[in-house]
Amino acid sequence: MKSFTIHSFPVRVYYEDTDAQKIVYYANYFRFMERARTEMMRDAGFSHAAITHEEGQFFVVGEATARYHMSARLDDDLIVATSVTHLGNASLKLRQNVLKRLDGAESLLVEGAITLIYVGENGRPVRIPQRMRDALLPYCEGH
Amino acid sequence: MKSFTIHSFPVRVYYEDTDAQKIVYYANYFRFMERARTEMMRDAGFSHAAITHEEGQFFVVGEATARYHMSARLDDDLIVATSVTHLGNASLKLRQNVLKRLDGAESLLVEGAITLIYVGENGRPVRIPQRMRDALLPYCEGH
Amino acid sequence: MKSFTIHSFPVRVYYEDTDAQKIVYYANYFRFMERARTEMMRDAGFSHAAITHEEGQFFVVGEATARYHMSARLDDDLIVATSVTHLGNASLKLRQNVLKRLDGAESLLVEGAITLIYVGENGRPVRIPQRMRDALLPYCEGH
Amino acid sequence: MKSFTIHSFPVRVYYEDTDAQKIVYYANYFRFMERARTEMMRDAGFSHAAITHEEGQFFVVGEATARYHMSARLDDDLIVATSVTHLGNASLKLRQNVLKRLDGAESLLVEGAITLIYVGENGRPVRIPQRMRDALLPYCEGH
Repeated sequence: MKSFTIHSFPVRVYYEDTDAQKIVYYANYFRFMERARTEMMRDAGFSHAAITHEEGQFFVVGEATARYHMSARLDDDLIVATSVTHLGNASLKLRQNVLKRLDGAESLLVEGAITLIYVGENGRPVRIPQRMRDALLPYCEGH
Repeated sequence: MKSFTIHSFPVRVYYEDTDAQKIVYYANYFRFMERARTEMMRDAGFSHAAITHEEGQFFVVGEATARYHMSARLDDDLIVATSVTHLGNASLKLRQNVLKRLDGAESLLVEGAITLIYVGENGRPVRIPQRMRDALLPYCEGH
Repeated sequence: MKSFTIHSFPVRVYYEDTDAQKIVYYANYFRFMERARTEMMRDAGFSHAAITHEEGQFFVVGEATARYHMSARLDDDLIVATSVTHLGNASLKLRQNVLKRLDGAESLLVEGAITLIYVGENGRPVRIPQRMRDALLPYCEGH
Repeated sequence: MKSFTIHSFPVRVYYEDTDAQKIVYYANYFRFMERARTEMMRDAGFSHAAITHEEGQFFVVGEATARYHMSARLDDDLIVATSVTHLGNASLKLRQNVLKRLDGAESLLVEGAITLIYVGENGRPVRIPQRMRDALLPYCEGH
Protein backbone atom coordinates (compact mmCIF):
# COMPACT_ATOMS: atom_id res chain seq x y z
CA MET A 1 0.00 0.00 0.00
CA LYS A 2 1.27 3.41 -0.89
CA SER A 3 1.23 6.34 1.47
CA PHE A 4 -1.39 9.05 1.25
CA THR A 5 -2.01 12.49 2.73
CA ILE A 6 -4.65 13.08 5.39
CA HIS A 7 -5.94 16.61 5.10
CA SER A 8 -6.09 18.32 8.47
CA PHE A 9 -8.40 21.26 9.15
CA PRO A 10 -8.68 23.04 12.52
CA VAL A 11 -12.06 23.91 14.06
CA ARG A 12 -12.62 25.86 17.24
CA VAL A 13 -15.87 25.22 19.11
CA TYR A 14 -17.97 28.34 19.72
CA TYR A 15 -21.32 28.86 21.46
CA GLU A 16 -23.06 28.66 18.07
CA ASP A 17 -21.91 25.03 17.81
CA THR A 18 -23.12 23.84 21.20
CA ASP A 19 -26.51 22.97 22.61
CA ALA A 20 -28.20 22.78 26.00
CA GLN A 21 -26.46 19.48 26.76
CA LYS A 22 -23.30 21.64 26.81
CA ILE A 23 -21.84 19.63 23.95
CA VAL A 24 -21.57 20.24 20.22
CA TYR A 25 -24.98 19.66 18.59
CA TYR A 26 -24.84 16.42 16.63
CA ALA A 27 -25.70 17.93 13.24
CA ASN A 28 -22.99 20.57 13.53
CA TYR A 29 -20.17 18.05 13.04
CA PHE A 30 -21.47 17.82 9.48
CA ARG A 31 -20.83 21.56 9.17
CA PHE A 32 -17.27 21.06 10.35
CA MET A 33 -16.86 18.27 7.79
CA GLU A 34 -18.16 20.50 5.00
CA ARG A 35 -15.66 23.21 5.90
CA ALA A 36 -12.85 20.67 5.97
CA ARG A 37 -13.58 19.06 2.61
CA THR A 38 -14.06 22.48 1.04
CA GLU A 39 -10.56 23.39 2.20
CA MET A 40 -9.17 20.05 1.00
CA MET A 41 -10.62 20.81 -2.43
CA ARG A 42 -9.30 24.37 -2.30
CA ASP A 43 -5.84 23.09 -1.37
CA ALA A 44 -6.14 20.75 -4.35
CA GLY A 45 -6.85 23.76 -6.54
CA PHE A 46 -10.63 23.57 -6.68
CA SER A 47 -12.55 26.24 -4.83
CA HIS A 48 -16.34 26.10 -5.19
CA ALA A 49 -16.02 28.86 -7.77
CA ALA A 50 -13.40 26.88 -9.65
CA ILE A 51 -15.55 23.75 -9.61
CA THR A 52 -18.67 25.53 -10.75
CA HIS A 53 -16.73 27.11 -13.59
CA GLU A 54 -16.27 23.56 -14.85
CA GLU A 55 -19.41 24.11 -16.92
CA GLY A 56 -21.81 24.47 -14.02
CA GLN A 57 -20.82 21.28 -12.28
CA PHE A 58 -20.73 20.85 -8.51
CA PHE A 59 -20.84 18.27 -5.72
CA VAL A 60 -23.97 17.25 -3.85
CA VAL A 61 -24.05 15.00 -0.82
CA GLY A 62 -25.38 11.53 -1.53
CA GLU A 63 -24.93 10.01 1.89
CA ALA A 64 -23.66 11.19 5.26
CA THR A 65 -22.92 9.16 8.35
CA ALA A 66 -21.48 10.07 11.72
CA ARG A 67 -20.63 7.78 14.61
CA TYR A 68 -20.33 9.70 17.84
CA HIS A 69 -17.82 8.39 20.37
CA MET A 70 -17.11 11.38 22.58
CA SER A 71 -18.49 14.90 22.77
CA ALA A 72 -16.79 18.16 21.94
CA ARG A 73 -17.40 21.12 24.22
CA LEU A 74 -17.14 24.90 24.19
CA ASP A 75 -13.62 26.20 23.42
CA ASP A 76 -12.42 22.76 22.31
CA ASP A 77 -9.66 22.69 19.72
CA LEU A 78 -10.66 20.17 17.05
CA ILE A 79 -9.30 18.99 13.77
CA VAL A 80 -11.16 17.35 10.94
CA ALA A 81 -9.00 14.69 9.29
CA THR A 82 -10.13 14.03 5.73
CA SER A 83 -9.04 11.38 3.25
CA VAL A 84 -10.57 9.81 0.15
CA THR A 85 -11.71 6.19 0.55
CA HIS A 86 -13.12 5.79 -2.95
CA LEU A 87 -12.77 7.84 -6.11
CA GLY A 88 -15.52 6.65 -8.44
CA ASN A 89 -16.58 7.79 -11.85
CA ALA A 90 -18.99 10.44 -10.62
CA SER A 91 -18.70 9.94 -6.89
CA LEU A 92 -16.23 10.53 -4.12
CA LYS A 93 -16.26 8.82 -0.74
CA LEU A 94 -14.55 10.58 2.12
CA ARG A 95 -13.50 9.56 5.58
CA GLN A 96 -13.88 12.62 7.79
CA ASN A 97 -12.95 12.08 11.39
CA VAL A 98 -13.22 14.76 14.04
CA LEU A 99 -10.52 14.69 16.68
CA LYS A 100 -9.89 16.74 19.79
CA ARG A 101 -6.42 18.12 20.40
CA LEU A 102 -5.37 18.48 24.00
CA ASP A 103 -1.89 18.61 25.49
CA GLY A 104 -0.27 17.32 22.33
CA ALA A 105 -2.53 14.27 22.09
CA GLU A 106 -5.49 13.69 19.79
CA SER A 107 -8.60 11.70 20.67
CA LEU A 108 -11.23 10.56 18.20
CA LEU A 109 -14.65 12.11 18.80
CA VAL A 110 -16.64 11.43 15.66
CA GLU A 111 -16.13 9.15 12.67
CA GLY A 112 -17.66 10.57 9.54
CA ALA A 113 -18.27 9.02 6.13
CA ILE A 114 -19.49 11.22 3.32
CA THR A 115 -20.41 10.27 -0.23
CA LEU A 116 -20.37 13.13 -2.72
CA ILE A 117 -21.92 12.96 -6.16
CA TYR A 118 -20.58 15.13 -8.95
CA VAL A 119 -23.48 16.54 -10.94
CA GLY A 120 -24.07 18.81 -13.89
CA GLU A 121 -26.50 21.69 -14.16
CA ASN A 122 -29.42 19.29 -14.70
CA GLY A 123 -28.60 17.51 -11.43
CA ARG A 124 -27.49 14.32 -13.22
CA PRO A 125 -24.19 12.66 -12.22
CA VAL A 126 -21.29 13.45 -14.52
CA ARG A 127 -17.76 12.14 -14.62
CA ILE A 128 -15.33 13.90 -12.29
CA PRO A 129 -12.86 15.72 -14.58
CA GLN A 130 -9.39 14.24 -14.94
CA ARG A 131 -7.66 17.34 -13.53
CA MET A 132 -9.71 17.04 -10.36
CA ARG A 133 -9.05 13.29 -10.12
CA ASP A 134 -5.33 13.93 -10.39
CA ALA A 135 -5.49 16.62 -7.72
CA LEU A 136 -7.40 14.32 -5.36
CA LEU A 137 -5.09 11.36 -5.83
CA PRO A 138 -2.67 12.26 -3.01
CA TYR A 139 -5.57 12.09 -0.53
CA CYS A 140 -6.74 8.66 -1.71
CA GLU A 141 -6.20 5.85 0.80
CA GLY A 142 -4.26 3.00 -0.74
CA HIS A 143 -3.98 4.60 -4.17
CA MET B 1 -55.69 55.38 15.73
CA LYS B 2 -57.26 52.48 13.94
CA SER B 3 -56.87 48.90 15.03
CA PHE B 4 -54.43 46.53 13.37
CA THR B 5 -53.66 42.83 13.38
CA ILE B 6 -50.61 41.42 15.11
CA HIS B 7 -49.50 38.27 13.31
CA SER B 8 -48.81 35.46 15.76
CA PHE B 9 -46.51 32.55 14.90
CA PRO B 10 -45.69 29.69 17.28
CA VAL B 11 -42.12 28.44 17.77
CA ARG B 12 -41.08 25.48 19.87
CA VAL B 13 -37.51 25.51 21.21
CA TYR B 14 -35.43 22.44 20.26
CA TYR B 15 -31.87 21.43 21.07
CA GLU B 16 -30.75 22.92 17.72
CA ASP B 17 -31.79 26.37 18.99
CA THR B 18 -29.97 26.28 22.30
CA ASP B 19 -26.34 26.70 23.31
CA ALA B 20 -24.06 25.70 26.16
CA GLN B 21 -25.52 28.46 28.37
CA LYS B 22 -28.70 26.30 28.21
CA ILE B 23 -30.57 29.16 26.58
CA VAL B 24 -31.54 29.95 23.00
CA TYR B 25 -28.46 31.17 21.09
CA TYR B 26 -28.83 34.91 20.51
CA ALA B 27 -28.66 34.76 16.71
CA ASN B 28 -31.36 32.11 16.51
CA TYR B 29 -34.13 34.53 17.48
CA PHE B 30 -33.50 36.08 14.07
CA ARG B 31 -34.30 32.70 12.54
CA PHE B 32 -37.57 32.61 14.46
CA MET B 33 -38.34 36.11 13.19
CA GLU B 34 -37.65 35.11 9.60
CA ARG B 35 -40.04 32.16 9.90
CA ALA B 36 -42.70 34.41 11.40
CA ARG B 37 -42.53 37.14 8.77
CA THR B 38 -42.46 34.55 6.01
CA GLU B 39 -45.72 33.15 7.37
CA MET B 40 -47.19 36.65 7.74
CA MET B 41 -46.41 37.25 4.07
CA ARG B 42 -47.81 33.84 3.14
CA ASP B 43 -51.01 34.57 5.08
CA ALA B 44 -51.18 37.84 3.16
CA GLY B 45 -50.96 35.86 -0.09
CA PHE B 46 -47.26 36.21 -0.80
CA SER B 47 -45.14 33.12 -0.43
CA HIS B 48 -41.48 33.51 -1.39
CA ALA B 49 -42.36 31.86 -4.68
CA ALA B 50 -45.21 34.28 -5.23
CA ILE B 51 -42.99 37.27 -4.43
CA THR B 52 -40.18 36.13 -6.69
CA HIS B 53 -42.67 35.64 -9.52
CA GLU B 54 -43.23 39.39 -9.31
CA GLU B 55 -40.53 39.74 -11.97
CA GLY B 56 -37.65 38.43 -9.89
CA GLN B 57 -38.19 40.71 -6.95
CA PHE B 58 -37.59 39.76 -3.34
CA PHE B 59 -36.88 41.15 0.13
CA VAL B 60 -33.44 41.53 1.63
CA VAL B 61 -32.72 42.53 5.21
CA GLY B 62 -31.42 46.08 5.57
CA GLU B 63 -31.18 46.23 9.34
CA ALA B 64 -31.88 43.87 12.22
CA THR B 65 -31.97 44.61 15.92
CA ALA B 66 -32.81 42.49 18.93
CA ARG B 67 -33.04 43.56 22.57
CA TYR B 68 -32.81 40.58 24.88
CA HIS B 69 -34.79 40.79 28.13
CA MET B 70 -35.20 37.17 29.18
CA SER B 71 -33.91 33.88 27.82
CA ALA B 72 -35.86 31.09 26.19
CA ARG B 73 -34.95 27.52 27.09
CA LEU B 74 -35.34 24.00 25.75
CA ASP B 75 -38.98 22.96 25.20
CA ASP B 76 -40.25 26.52 25.66
CA ASP B 77 -43.42 27.43 23.82
CA LEU B 78 -42.83 30.78 22.11
CA ILE B 79 -44.72 33.04 19.79
CA VAL B 80 -43.34 35.65 17.45
CA ALA B 81 -45.68 38.65 17.30
CA THR B 82 -45.19 40.58 14.07
CA SER B 83 -46.61 43.92 12.96
CA VAL B 84 -45.62 46.57 10.43
CA THR B 85 -44.30 49.82 11.89
CA HIS B 86 -43.52 51.52 8.59
CA LEU B 87 -44.51 50.74 5.02
CA GLY B 88 -42.21 52.79 2.83
CA ASN B 89 -41.81 52.99 -0.90
CA ALA B 90 -39.31 50.16 -1.18
CA SER B 91 -38.91 49.27 2.47
CA LEU B 92 -40.85 47.62 5.23
CA LYS B 93 -40.16 47.99 8.94
CA LEU B 94 -41.38 45.26 11.22
CA ARG B 95 -41.75 44.93 14.96
CA GLN B 96 -41.09 41.27 15.79
CA ASN B 97 -41.33 40.45 19.45
CA VAL B 98 -40.66 37.01 20.84
CA LEU B 99 -42.85 36.01 23.78
CA LYS B 100 -42.98 32.95 25.98
CA ARG B 101 -46.32 31.35 26.69
CA LEU B 102 -46.72 29.65 30.04
CA ASP B 103 -49.88 28.88 32.00
CA GLY B 104 -51.99 31.17 29.85
CA ALA B 105 -49.71 34.18 30.33
CA GLU B 106 -47.20 35.65 27.91
CA SER B 107 -43.91 37.28 28.85
CA LEU B 108 -41.73 39.34 26.54
CA LEU B 109 -38.31 37.79 25.92
CA VAL B 110 -36.89 39.63 22.93
CA GLU B 111 -37.87 42.82 21.11
CA GLY B 112 -36.97 42.69 17.45
CA ALA B 113 -36.94 45.39 14.78
CA ILE B 114 -36.32 44.41 11.19
CA THR B 115 -36.03 46.61 8.12
CA LEU B 116 -36.63 44.85 4.82
CA ILE B 117 -35.72 46.29 1.45
CA TYR B 118 -37.61 45.23 -1.63
CA VAL B 119 -35.16 44.74 -4.50
CA GLY B 120 -35.21 43.70 -8.12
CA GLU B 121 -32.97 41.21 -9.86
CA ASN B 122 -30.10 43.72 -10.01
CA GLY B 123 -30.27 44.19 -6.23
CA ARG B 124 -31.57 47.77 -6.51
CA PRO B 125 -34.57 48.84 -4.40
CA VAL B 126 -37.87 48.85 -6.26
CA ARG B 127 -41.33 49.99 -5.22
CA ILE B 128 -43.34 47.40 -3.28
CA PRO B 129 -46.24 46.47 -5.61
CA GLN B 130 -49.68 47.85 -4.77
CA ARG B 131 -51.22 44.40 -4.27
CA MET B 132 -48.61 43.60 -1.64
CA ARG B 133 -49.09 46.98 0.05
CA ASP B 134 -52.82 46.36 0.25
CA ALA B 135 -52.26 42.90 1.67
CA LEU B 136 -49.87 44.23 4.34
CA LEU B 137 -52.13 47.10 5.39
CA PRO B 138 -54.03 45.15 8.09
CA TYR B 139 -50.73 44.51 9.89
CA CYS B 140 -49.69 48.19 9.85
CA GLU B 141 -49.66 49.85 13.24
CA GLY B 142 -51.78 53.01 13.22
CA HIS B 143 -52.69 52.74 9.54
CA MET C 1 -46.47 -8.62 11.65
CA LYS C 2 -48.51 -6.29 13.75
CA SER C 3 -49.34 -2.77 12.72
CA PHE C 4 -47.49 0.22 14.12
CA THR C 5 -47.84 3.98 14.11
CA ILE C 6 -45.58 6.19 12.02
CA HIS C 7 -45.21 9.54 13.72
CA SER C 8 -45.68 12.39 11.25
CA PHE C 9 -44.23 15.85 11.86
CA PRO C 10 -44.59 18.78 9.45
CA VAL C 11 -41.63 21.01 8.54
CA ARG C 12 -41.75 24.11 6.38
CA VAL C 13 -38.55 25.09 4.57
CA TYR C 14 -37.35 28.64 5.32
CA TYR C 15 -34.35 30.61 4.09
CA GLU C 16 -32.44 29.59 7.22
CA ASP C 17 -32.58 25.97 6.04
CA THR C 18 -31.31 26.52 2.51
CA ASP C 19 -27.88 27.14 1.03
CA ALA C 20 -26.38 28.71 -2.08
CA GLN C 21 -27.25 25.61 -4.13
CA LYS C 22 -30.86 26.75 -3.51
CA ILE C 23 -31.60 23.50 -1.71
CA VAL C 24 -31.83 22.55 1.95
CA TYR C 25 -28.31 22.29 3.41
CA TYR C 26 -27.53 18.62 3.98
CA ALA C 27 -26.89 18.89 7.71
CA ASN C 28 -30.19 20.64 8.32
CA TYR C 29 -32.25 17.51 7.67
CA PHE C 30 -30.76 16.26 10.93
CA ARG C 31 -32.30 19.31 12.62
CA PHE C 32 -35.67 18.40 11.15
CA MET C 33 -35.23 14.85 12.43
CA GLU C 34 -34.39 16.09 15.91
CA ARG C 35 -37.55 18.21 15.98
CA ALA C 36 -39.62 15.25 14.80
CA ARG C 37 -38.34 12.73 17.33
CA THR C 38 -38.66 15.30 20.12
CA GLU C 39 -42.33 15.66 19.21
CA MET C 40 -42.76 11.88 18.97
CA MET C 41 -41.38 11.60 22.50
CA ARG C 42 -43.57 14.48 23.66
CA ASP C 43 -46.63 12.81 22.14
CA ALA C 44 -45.60 9.67 24.01
CA GLY C 45 -45.56 11.70 27.23
CA PHE C 46 -41.86 12.44 27.46
CA SER C 47 -40.78 16.02 26.87
CA HIS C 48 -37.08 16.73 27.35
CA ALA C 49 -37.97 18.12 30.77
CA ALA C 50 -39.90 14.96 31.62
CA ILE C 51 -37.02 12.76 30.49
CA THR C 52 -34.40 14.71 32.38
CA HIS C 53 -36.52 14.52 35.51
CA GLU C 54 -36.00 10.77 35.31
CA GLU C 55 -33.01 11.26 37.59
CA GLY C 56 -30.92 13.30 35.18
CA GLN C 57 -31.15 10.89 32.29
CA PHE C 58 -31.33 11.91 28.65
CA PHE C 59 -30.70 10.72 25.10
CA VAL C 60 -27.51 11.33 23.15
CA VAL C 61 -27.01 10.50 19.49
CA GLY C 62 -24.80 7.47 18.90
CA GLU C 63 -25.02 7.33 15.12
CA ALA C 64 -26.73 9.33 12.41
CA THR C 65 -27.08 8.52 8.74
CA ALA C 66 -28.88 10.25 5.90
CA ARG C 67 -29.25 9.09 2.32
CA TYR C 68 -30.19 11.96 0.04
CA HIS C 69 -32.43 11.12 -2.92
CA MET C 70 -34.01 14.44 -3.85
CA SER C 71 -33.57 17.99 -2.61
CA ALA C 72 -36.00 20.12 -0.67
CA ARG C 73 -36.29 23.78 -1.62
CA LEU C 74 -37.50 27.07 -0.18
CA ASP C 75 -41.20 27.03 0.87
CA ASP C 76 -41.42 23.24 0.51
CA ASP C 77 -43.94 21.49 2.73
CA LEU C 78 -42.18 18.49 4.28
CA ILE C 79 -43.03 15.82 6.78
CA VAL C 80 -40.66 13.77 8.87
CA ALA C 81 -41.99 10.23 9.26
CA THR C 82 -40.54 8.57 12.37
CA SER C 83 -40.79 5.00 13.58
CA VAL C 84 -38.74 2.81 15.91
CA THR C 85 -36.75 0.05 14.23
CA HIS C 86 -35.11 -1.29 17.38
CA LEU C 87 -35.79 -0.75 21.06
CA GLY C 88 -32.73 -2.02 22.89
CA ASN C 89 -31.84 -2.01 26.52
CA ALA C 90 -30.24 1.41 26.54
CA SER C 91 -30.58 2.33 22.88
CA LEU C 92 -33.25 3.28 20.43
CA LYS C 93 -32.97 3.06 16.65
CA LEU C 94 -35.21 5.27 14.59
CA ARG C 95 -36.14 5.41 10.95
CA GLN C 96 -36.68 9.07 10.11
CA ASN C 97 -37.62 9.72 6.54
CA VAL C 98 -38.17 13.18 5.13
CA LEU C 99 -40.90 13.44 2.52
CA LYS C 100 -42.20 16.30 0.42
CA ARG C 101 -45.93 16.85 0.18
CA LEU C 102 -47.23 18.28 -3.04
CA ASP C 103 -50.70 18.06 -4.56
CA GLY C 104 -51.76 15.29 -2.22
CA ALA C 105 -48.79 13.07 -3.04
CA GLU C 106 -45.66 12.44 -0.99
CA SER C 107 -42.20 11.82 -2.39
CA LEU C 108 -39.23 10.53 -0.42
CA LEU C 109 -36.36 13.00 -0.21
CA VAL C 110 -34.10 11.72 2.53
CA GLU C 111 -33.86 8.42 4.40
CA GLY C 112 -32.58 8.87 7.91
CA ALA C 113 -31.43 6.35 10.49
CA ILE C 114 -30.65 7.55 14.00
CA THR C 115 -29.36 5.59 16.96
CA LEU C 116 -29.99 7.17 20.35
CA ILE C 117 -28.28 6.11 23.54
CA TYR C 118 -29.98 6.65 26.87
CA VAL C 119 -27.43 7.87 29.39
CA GLY C 120 -27.31 8.92 33.00
CA GLU C 121 -25.68 12.00 34.48
CA ASN C 122 -22.24 10.43 34.22
CA GLY C 123 -22.73 9.87 30.49
CA ARG C 124 -22.90 6.08 30.85
CA PRO C 125 -25.69 4.13 29.14
CA VAL C 126 -28.58 3.21 31.40
CA ARG C 127 -31.67 1.08 30.80
CA ILE C 128 -34.56 2.92 29.20
CA PRO C 129 -37.30 3.03 31.88
CA GLN C 130 -40.25 0.69 31.47
CA ARG C 131 -42.80 3.53 31.25
CA MET C 132 -40.88 5.02 28.33
CA ARG C 133 -40.58 1.60 26.64
CA ASP C 134 -44.32 1.11 26.94
CA ALA C 135 -44.99 4.56 25.52
CA LEU C 136 -42.69 3.92 22.54
CA LEU C 137 -44.13 0.50 21.74
CA PRO C 138 -46.84 1.76 19.34
CA TYR C 139 -44.12 3.31 17.14
CA CYS C 140 -42.07 0.09 16.99
CA GLU C 141 -42.00 -1.57 13.58
CA GLY C 142 -43.09 -5.21 13.82
CA HIS C 143 -43.59 -5.15 17.56
CA MET D 1 -7.68 60.79 21.08
CA LYS D 2 -5.38 57.94 21.82
CA SER D 3 -4.82 55.05 19.50
CA PHE D 4 -6.48 51.69 20.01
CA THR D 5 -6.27 48.21 18.56
CA ILE D 6 -8.93 46.82 16.26
CA HIS D 7 -9.10 43.07 16.66
CA SER D 8 -9.19 41.32 13.29
CA PHE D 9 -10.61 37.82 12.86
CA PRO D 10 -10.80 35.98 9.51
CA VAL D 11 -13.96 34.14 8.40
CA ARG D 12 -14.32 32.04 5.29
CA VAL D 13 -17.84 31.67 3.86
CA TYR D 14 -19.01 28.06 3.46
CA TYR D 15 -22.25 26.56 2.17
CA GLU D 16 -23.53 26.32 5.75
CA ASP D 17 -23.46 30.13 5.94
CA THR D 18 -25.38 30.86 2.76
CA ASP D 19 -29.04 30.69 1.81
CA ALA D 20 -31.12 30.30 -1.33
CA GLN D 21 -30.53 33.96 -2.24
CA LYS D 22 -26.91 32.82 -2.73
CA ILE D 23 -25.75 35.21 -0.04
CA VAL D 24 -24.83 34.78 3.60
CA TYR D 25 -28.01 34.35 5.67
CA TYR D 26 -28.56 37.54 7.66
CA ALA D 27 -28.51 35.91 11.10
CA ASN D 28 -25.22 34.18 10.42
CA TYR D 29 -23.21 37.39 10.58
CA PHE D 30 -24.03 37.32 14.29
CA ARG D 31 -22.32 33.93 14.45
CA PHE D 32 -19.24 35.43 12.82
CA MET D 33 -19.33 38.26 15.36
CA GLU D 34 -19.56 35.80 18.25
CA ARG D 35 -16.52 33.91 16.98
CA ALA D 36 -14.60 37.16 16.60
CA ARG D 37 -15.32 38.55 20.06
CA THR D 38 -14.59 35.16 21.61
CA GLU D 39 -11.15 35.29 19.99
CA MET D 40 -10.65 38.91 21.05
CA MET D 41 -11.36 37.85 24.62
CA ARG D 42 -9.09 34.82 24.25
CA ASP D 43 -6.30 37.03 22.91
CA ALA D 44 -6.88 39.23 25.96
CA GLY D 45 -6.40 36.19 28.16
CA PHE D 46 -10.03 35.28 28.78
CA SER D 47 -11.32 32.12 27.15
CA HIS D 48 -14.91 31.16 27.99
CA ALA D 49 -13.48 28.66 30.45
CA ALA D 50 -11.31 31.34 32.02
CA ILE D 51 -14.26 33.72 32.31
CA THR D 52 -16.56 31.13 33.80
CA HIS D 53 -13.91 30.24 36.34
CA GLU D 54 -14.32 33.79 37.62
CA GLU D 55 -16.87 32.39 40.06
CA GLY D 56 -19.43 31.30 37.50
CA GLN D 57 -19.63 34.60 35.69
CA PHE D 58 -20.15 34.98 31.96
CA PHE D 59 -21.36 37.37 29.27
CA VAL D 60 -24.86 37.39 27.84
CA VAL D 61 -25.99 39.47 24.88
CA GLY D 62 -28.16 42.43 25.83
CA GLU D 63 -28.62 43.95 22.40
CA ALA D 64 -27.50 43.12 18.89
CA THR D 65 -27.79 45.22 15.76
CA ALA D 66 -26.59 44.69 12.21
CA ARG D 67 -26.81 47.09 9.28
CA TYR D 68 -26.41 45.26 6.00
CA HIS D 69 -24.72 47.19 3.19
CA MET D 70 -23.46 44.48 0.84
CA SER D 71 -23.79 40.72 0.77
CA ALA D 72 -21.12 38.11 1.32
CA ARG D 73 -21.12 35.06 -0.93
CA LEU D 74 -19.79 31.51 -1.02
CA ASP D 75 -15.97 31.30 -0.71
CA ASP D 76 -15.68 34.98 0.28
CA ASP D 77 -12.76 35.89 2.50
CA LEU D 78 -14.09 38.05 5.32
CA ILE D 79 -12.72 39.65 8.43
CA VAL D 80 -14.59 40.74 11.51
CA ALA D 81 -13.10 43.93 12.92
CA THR D 82 -13.90 44.30 16.61
CA SER D 83 -13.32 47.20 18.98
CA VAL D 84 -14.83 48.34 22.27
CA THR D 85 -17.00 51.45 22.10
CA HIS D 86 -18.01 51.50 25.76
CA LEU D 87 -16.68 49.68 28.80
CA GLY D 88 -19.33 50.08 31.50
CA ASN D 89 -19.57 48.74 34.99
CA ALA D 90 -21.24 45.48 34.03
CA SER D 91 -21.60 45.98 30.30
CA LEU D 92 -19.44 46.06 27.23
CA LYS D 93 -20.38 47.65 23.90
CA LEU D 94 -18.63 46.40 20.82
CA ARG D 95 -18.37 47.61 17.28
CA GLN D 96 -18.12 44.52 15.08
CA ASN D 97 -17.86 45.25 11.40
CA VAL D 98 -17.70 42.55 8.76
CA LEU D 99 -15.49 43.35 5.77
CA LYS D 100 -14.70 41.51 2.60
CA ARG D 101 -11.10 41.20 1.50
CA LEU D 102 -10.46 41.09 -2.20
CA ASP D 103 -7.31 41.93 -4.14
CA GLY D 104 -5.75 43.68 -1.17
CA ALA D 105 -8.73 45.97 -0.60
CA GLU D 106 -11.42 45.71 2.07
CA SER D 107 -15.05 46.69 1.64
CA LEU D 108 -17.55 47.08 4.45
CA LEU D 109 -20.43 44.59 4.26
CA VAL D 110 -22.12 44.72 7.65
CA GLU D 111 -21.91 47.11 10.58
CA GLY D 112 -22.54 45.37 13.87
CA ALA D 113 -23.12 46.74 17.36
CA ILE D 114 -23.30 44.34 20.26
CA THR D 115 -23.96 45.04 23.92
CA LEU D 116 -22.79 42.37 26.33
CA ILE D 117 -23.87 42.15 29.95
CA TYR D 118 -21.61 40.50 32.49
CA VAL D 119 -23.72 38.35 34.81
CA GLY D 120 -23.21 36.05 37.76
CA GLU D 121 -24.67 32.61 38.30
CA ASN D 122 -28.05 34.06 39.25
CA GLY D 123 -28.22 35.95 35.95
CA ARG D 124 -27.84 39.35 37.64
CA PRO D 125 -25.32 41.88 36.25
CA VAL D 126 -22.05 42.00 38.13
CA ARG D 127 -19.05 44.29 37.80
CA ILE D 128 -16.56 43.26 35.15
CA PRO D 129 -13.39 42.28 37.06
CA GLN D 130 -10.48 44.70 36.99
CA ARG D 131 -8.12 42.22 35.30
CA MET D 132 -10.57 41.85 32.43
CA ARG D 133 -11.06 45.62 32.19
CA ASP D 134 -7.31 46.10 31.97
CA ALA D 135 -7.03 43.44 29.29
CA LEU D 136 -9.82 45.01 27.23
CA LEU D 137 -8.42 48.53 27.46
CA PRO D 138 -6.22 48.33 24.33
CA TYR D 139 -9.35 47.60 22.25
CA CYS D 140 -11.29 50.59 23.64
CA GLU D 141 -11.91 53.37 21.14
CA GLY D 142 -10.67 56.70 22.47
CA HIS D 143 -9.51 55.31 25.80
